[in-house]
Amino acid sequence: MKKQKKDIIILGAGNVAHALGKELNAKGYLIRGVYSRTTKSARALAKYFSCDVYADPSLIPADANYYLISVTDEALPEVASRMPLTDGTVMHTAGSVPLDVLARFKRYGVLYPLQTLSKNKETDFSIMPLCIEASDKTTLKEIKKIALEMSETVVEVTTQQRKVLHVAAVFACNFSNYMYIAAHDILKQAGMDFKILLPLIIETVEKLMLMEPRQAQTGPAIRGDKSIMQEHIHLLKEMPHYQKIYKSLSSAIAEILAPKKD
Amino acid sequence: MKKQKKDIIILGAGNVAHALGKELNAKGYLIRGVYSRTTKSARALAKYFSCDVYADPSLIPADANYYLISVTDEALPEVASRMPLTDGTVMHTAGSVPLDVLARFKRYGVLYPLQTLSKNKETDFSIMPLCIEASDKTTLKEIKKIALEMSETVVEVTTQQRKVLHVAAVFACNFSNYMYIAAHDILKQAGMDFKILLPLIIETVEKLMLMEPRQAQTGPAIRGDKSIMQEHIHLLKEMPHYQKIYKSLSSAIAEILAPKKD
Repeated sequence: MKKQKKDIIILGAGNVAHALGKELNAKGYLIRGVYSRTTKSARALAKYFSCDVYADPSLIPADANYYLISVTDEALPEVASRMPLTDGTVMHTAGSVPLDVLARFKRYGVLYPLQTLSKNKETDFSIMPLCIEASDKTTLKEIKKIALEMSETVVEVTTQQRKVLHVAAVFACNFSNYMYIAAHDILKQAGMDFKILLPLIIETVEKLMLMEPRQAQTGPAIRGDKSIMQEHIHLLKEMPHYQKIYKSLSSAIAEILAPKKD
Repeated sequence: MKKQKKDIIILGAGNVAHALGKELNAKGYLIRGVYSRTTKSARALAKYFSCDVYADPSLIPADANYYLISVTDEALPEVASRMPLTDGTVMHTAGSVPLDVLARFKRYGVLYPLQTLSKNKETDFSIMPLCIEASDKTTLKEIKKIALEMSETVVEVTTQQRKVLHVAAVFACNFSNYMYIAAHDILKQAGMDFKILLPLIIETVEKLMLMEPRQAQTGPAIRGDKSIMQEHIHLLKEMPHYQKIYKSLSSAIAEILAPKKD
């Protein structure tokens, strides 16, 4: 007799809900239904799984095996408080929300993907670190099993460690991507194509495989090349928000890194 | 009869001088001598090529085919003014110094590698954009020939375009690398290893192959997740310089990108 699929209800319909839902579905879990406060997003995701849509957390059935909450950190406490009590395992996927936001449930935990997920790009889950935490050893084991089906890198972390990972990830991913936006805008204003920077961006990352980022730092600020920094600041006069960032980051680089010459 | 090798004299012994010198040497050029105001650096690089070391730009022979000046932007005008006048082609490699800093020479140009070069990492020159500019068409053709021996991507740019590329490169490379330094320090303080972030960093860059950086932006600032940003700011209280950057970049992301919810 074929083993019955474990079922999952997804709360949230953003990037993380999309990516995790699709991956869990691919790994043989049944996505039973989707809730999102944005009904349109919920419908779009539910359509992919041909599953139910719930208009409110209180309308979600209580008898699913798993509940995966991927809403904004701000919405998480309310969504968790308005869900039905259940014997299933309730997980959230947030980087910085304490485990005990789910303390009213019997079995609960965290499944935090340390990754940047966008709806319009498939992601390789197998190399993605999944950080887990749970209410008790049995639940931890259960969440670990699910995580290991998706990724080779499953890490048990405390709420505090997860928060630190999250803030580090904001710098390493969100802020570095903002630097790409700035570069894109600066080139676009001069009629040039961002793609010319791709080899440089790739090399910047490849260096990290060989050395610590501090050793990899190059450019005018670390060299203490003041005349060129003045020139760049002048060049950015039409883009004052980027000019301001240029100044403050150049100072920051000069401050915390020992200046080298030549 | 074997064709005699073209000879090059290198001025500067930093990262760019190292990388370009070694690549030109590998492509069959003879590195004849090295000048650097830091004698130790000059000796180290000259040792690699078994070539001469010059203690002063005025002592450099005038009869080489090529002169490659890779000193800091600040030092460039003085070095160029103290070199002997020559019939050879004089090139500088700076992103933001005008072509005419070399106007006292007969034939001159720019060979600007749009790349981050470190002494302790080999770089794939073949995919590296080399931006060129020259005093006249014949010299441009000559520099283009040299550049094409090293890279598939040789781009003719004006001084102004080169400056814009350079400032964009500072954001895309130097500032994004500074974000990796911050992430590294934040994890280190909590006893965690930076390597766990590598899949995230790689994915952040891979997204750029598929979408514009603006579309790729994720994280609390673009989601407008205020409670989590407050939490992160609190977490960074022991690292005020990173706390300050967290605040200003989160505001910058929120300001120039339309906030999306859920």
